[in-house]
Amino acid sequence: MNADSCTYVIFGSTGNLSRIKLMPALYHLDVANQLPQGTRIIAIGRRPWDQEKWLAELRDMIQTKVKDDFDEKIFQRFSARMYYHRGDIDQAECYSELAATLNQKSLFPKNIAFYLSISPADFGPVMENLSNNHLFDEESGWRRIIIEKPFGYDLDSAQALQKRISHYLTEEQIYRIDHYLGKGMVQNVLVFRFANVMLEPLWNRNYIDHIQITHSEALGIESRADYYNSAGALRDMLQSHLLQMLALVTMEPPVSMEAEALRDEKVKILKSIRPIPKEAVHAQAFRGQYAKGVVDGEKVNGYLQEENVPANSVTETYASMKLYIDNWRWRGVPFYLRTGKRMAKSQSTISICFRHPPLQFFRDTNIQCMNPNWVLLGIQPEECIRIEMTVKEPGLEMNTRTRSLDASFRNHDEKAIDAYEDLLLDVLKGDRSLFLRFDEVEYAWRIVDPILQTWAVERDYIATYPAGSWGPEDSRLFDKDAQSWRSSLTPECK
Amino acid sequence: MNADSCTYVIFGSTGNLSRIKLMPALYHLDVANQLPQGTRIIAIGRRPWDQEKWLAELRDMIQTKVKDDFDEKIFQRFSARMYYHRGDIDQAECYSELAATLNQKSLFPKNIAFYLSISPADFGPVMENLSNNHLFDEESGWRRIIIEKPFGYDLDSAQALQKRISHYLTEEQIYRIDHYLGKGMVQNVLVFRFANVMLEPLWNRNYIDHIQITHSEALGIESRADYYNSAGALRDMLQSHLLQMLALVTMEPPVSMEAEALRDEKVKILKSIRPIPKEAVHAQAFRGQYAKGVVDGEKVNGYLQEENVPANSVTETYASMKLYIDNWRWRGVPFYLRTGKRMAKSQSTISICFRHPPLQFFRDTNIQCMNPNWVLLGIQPEECIRIEMTVKEPGLEMNTRTRSLDASFRNHDEKAIDAYEDLLLDVLKGDRSLFLRFDEVEYAWRIVDPILQTWAVERDYIATYPAGSWGPEDSRLFDKDAQSWRSSLTPECK
Repeated sequence: MNADSCTYVIFGSTGNLSRIKLMPALYHLDVANQLPQGTRIIAIGRRPWDQEKWLAELRDMIQTKVKDDFDEKIFQRFSARMYYHRGDIDQAECYSELAATLNQKSLFPKNIAFYLSISPADFGPVMENLSNNHLFDEESGWRRIIIEKPFGYDLDSAQALQKRISHYLTEEQIYRIDHYLGKGMVQNVLVFRFANVMLEPLWNRNYIDHIQITHSEALGIESRADYYNSAGALRDMLQSHLLQMLALVTMEPPVSMEAEALRDEKVKILKSIRPIPKEAVHAQAFRGQYAKGVVDGEKVNGYLQEENVPANSVTETYASMKLYIDNWRWRGVPFYLRTGKRMAKSQSTISICFRHPPLQFFRDTNIQCMNPNWVLLGIQPEECIRIEMTVKEPGLEMNTRTRSLDASFRNHDEKAIDAYEDLLLDVLKGDRSLFLRFDEVEYAWRIVDPILQTWAVERDYIATYPAGSWGPEDSRLFDKDAQSWRSSLTPECK
Repeated sequence: MNADSCTYVIFGSTGNLSRIKLMPALYHLDVANQLPQGTRIIAIGRRPWDQEKWLAELRDMIQTKVKDDFDEKIFQRFSARMYYHRGDIDQAECYSELAATLNQKSLFPKNIAFYLSISPADFGPVMENLSNNHLFDEESGWRRIIIEKPFGYDLDSAQALQKRISHYLTEEQIYRIDHYLGKGMVQNVLVFRFANVMLEPLWNRNYIDHIQITHSEALGIESRADYYNSAGALRDMLQSHLLQMLALVTMEPPVSMEAEALRDEKVKILKSIRPIPKEAVHAQAFRGQYAKGVVDGEKVNGYLQEENVPANSVTETYASMKLYIDNWRWRGVPFYLRTGKRMAKSQSTISICFRHPPLQFFRDTNIQCMNPNWVLLGIQPEECIRIEMTVKEPGLEMNTRTRSLDASFRNHDEKAIDAYEDLLLDVLKGDRSLFLRFDEVEYAWRIVDPILQTWAVERDYIATYPAGSWGPEDSRLFDKDAQSWRSSLTPECK
C-alpha cells in the first residue's frame, strides 16, 4: 500500500505522549524517507508558544530521544513540515482558526489525519467541533482520526462513545490505536504461526495443555496517578493489549493479512470466549496492588504511597484471569493472562505449554518424569522464540533432560522500531489492520465487564505484592497443580 | 536390567578392532565400575605371545587410547581379568584347549559371551568347532555370541549363514552388532521422537516433504582394501547403518523400549519399503568412486590409487538411493539416503524437510518465497538438534527470514561414550534391543539386493567425485527440483 501525502493534525502536541513518542516517531519516519512528499504536521497546543518556540521545543524533544543520531539537515526538513497552532480545545475559535489554516490548500495537503492525544473525556466534544467546522467533510481528500486507548471505560461507556463519534465518522475513518499492538508484535506472531508449517498442526486442544500471556512492567505508575487510579490494570492493559495478544495467538488463519480479514478472525475469538458469570469472578480473576519493595536494587514506594493516589485506593496494579475459548480448536484449554506494574521484570511473553506425550514407552527406564514441551514467544524486550524439548542425557543410563532451542528475531546490529512509527505510517497508507475495530473493543469490554463490576463493589480488601516480585499469590486460578506462572525464560524443572 | 558376571571370549583379540575399540571399551567399563564382579576376559590370538607379553600389548592399546586418563590401579584390576589364549582358529586344538581352560570353573564365570572379531567367512567354522567342543551347552550358564557386521554378503549368503548358525544357537543367543547403531544414537532418536509431544503429530506425509539421511566420512578406505573392495559402500554402510537409521526415524511408536517391541517396529518399516524393480535401479540408486582430491588441505589419492585396490575396480565408495515406505504414515514421501568415503566432512545427520505452509496468507506482502521448515538431527560428530523456522525480519516492511534454533545434547564437559561400551555391556545384560534380529538383516538385504545385482553386472563405468567433495552429481534421484542434498547445517536460502 502506498502512503498518501497528508496533513497530520495533532491534538495535545505539547503533552507527554507527543514529546516521548509521536514527534520522535514522525522524525524517524522522515529520516527513513517514509513520509510522503509534502507531508505537513499541525501541532495544536494550549501553550502560548509561537512557531519559533515550538521548533526549539521540538528540537529538544528529538535530541533527547535520538541523542547522537540527531541529523541537523533532516531536522531542518522535518521542521519545515511543522506548523504550531496555538489553541484551547475547549474554545470554538480553536477549530475555526484551524479550518482557516487548513483552507490554505497550497500549503497543506488535502488529506487530513487528526491525532487525538488528549483525555478520552474530550474525544466527543473535539469531534463535534471538528464536524461543526466542516473539517470532516471529505470533498477534497480523506479524513481519518486516531484515538488512543482506552476506548471507553467499560462496555456501556464504550458503546456510548461509539454512538457519539459515529455521528461524524464512518468506521473506516476511525483508527483506534493500541501502541502495544505494534506492527512488529503482530507480524511476529502472524509469521510465526502461519509461515511455519510445523506449528499449525499442533495449535489446538489435542496438543496444548494451556497458554499463558504475561505483560509485566518494572515501572510503577509514574506521574499518572489520576488516570491510573481510575483505570487499573484490568482496563489499562488486560482488556486491550492482553486480549489482543490472546486473539492473535488463538485465531483461525485469516484469509489474508488485509485489515478486515484479520479483524474478523480476532472478533470470532473474542466472541467465543466463555463469559465469566459474576459468581465465577473470584475463581477466574485476581487483582493485586504493589506494596513497597525493591526494583533493580532500589527501594520503591508501594502504590498507596505514590503521589496523588488516595490512601484507601483498591485500584489493582496487577490483574490476572483465566479464560476459555469455546470453539472446536480450543475447547477445554485454559488461557492464563496477567499484567502488572512494579513487577520483577519488564517483559511480554506468550508461553505455550504442550501436553505430556504418552510416556508408557519409557516405563522400563530410569526416567521418573519429564518436562512437557514449551514454546515461548518473546515480544518484549527481546523478540525471540524458545522451544524447549526433551533430549537424551549423554551416558550409559537412559535419562533425559530439557534443552532450549533459542533464536532472536533481531541481529545485534538491528534496532527495534518503535510501534508508533509503524502505526503513524499505516494511517497514511489507510492500513487499519493494526487498529481496533469497534466490535473488537466492544467484545473485549464484554469479557472484562463482569469482573469490573464485581471489583467495583468489593472495596474493602485487595491482595498486595512486594514491588519487584512476580505478583500476588494467585495460584487458585490454575486448573491443575502442574500449572503455574512461568516467569523465567529458562527451563523449569519440577 | 542387571549385567551378569561372565567370561568374555574374544576371537581376534590381537586384531585392529580389538586394539582400537574392544579393549579400550572394556577398560572404560571397568573404570566406570560397570563390569560385574568376577568378569573375566579370554583373549584369543594366533600370535605366539604369553600372558606377560599380552598384558604389555594391552597396556599399550589402552594407553594409546586413553592417554592421560590412564589409571595404573584400574589397569591392574583390568589386567587381572585377562587370560591370553594362544590358538589358531583353524585348528581343532584351539577349541579343546579353550574348553579345558573354561572348565576351570573357579576361575571363569559360567556365563560365556563369544565375540567373533574375525572374518565373516570364519563365522561358520568357528561356531561348528565351539559346538563340537560343547562350548555352547548351556547347562551351567548362558552362552551368547556377538557377530560383527556385515551379516552375509547379499540376501542369499545371509540366509545361508543364518541357516548354518541356527544349528548351534537360538536367535536369542545371537547378538549381531552394528556399532554405528550405538545406544546413544538410537536413544537420541527415540527420546527425540517419543518424549516430545510436538513432533509426533507432524511426523507423517501430511507435513513432511522428504527426509534425508547422510552418513559421510572424510576418511578413505585406509588399509582395508581387501575387505572394502569386495564390499563397497552399499553393503558396508547403506544396507546396515542407514536403513537402521531410516527405520528408527520412521517406525510407529513401539509398545516399549524392550528389544522385541523395538525390533518388531523396525521390521515393519523394512517390510513396507517399496521394492526397487531392476529396471528402476538407475532411477533410485547411484554409485560413485572417489578420485584424487584434497581433504583437510591435504592432497589424497583416488580410490584406484589406494594400496591393494585393483586398477579396474568399480567398487562404489559412495552410494545413494531413494526409497518409499508404502504405509499410511509415509506413502508418497521420498527418503534419500547417502553414504560415502572421502567426503567433505565426517557427519551423520537426519534432515527432515517439511512442506510449505499455504502461503496465500502473505500474498499481499513483499514476501516472494520462504524456506520450508527443517528439523535436523545431528548424530555425529555432534549430537544436536536444529529447527529452522521462518520469522519476521525486523523493520517496517513485511519480510521474513530463516532462523535456526539449535541445541547440543551434550555439555562441553561431557564426553561421548563409545558405542562399543554400551554394546558390550548390553550383552552382559542380555539386552538385545540394539542388536539386529535376523529378519531385520534379511529385509535390509532384500531392499538392496536388486541394486547389488544390477551393479554387479555393470562393470564398465562408475561415476567419480573428487576426494573431499560432497559426492558425485546424483540429482537425478530427486523427485522435485526443489529437493537437493543438504550438506551444510546452516540454513540454505534458495
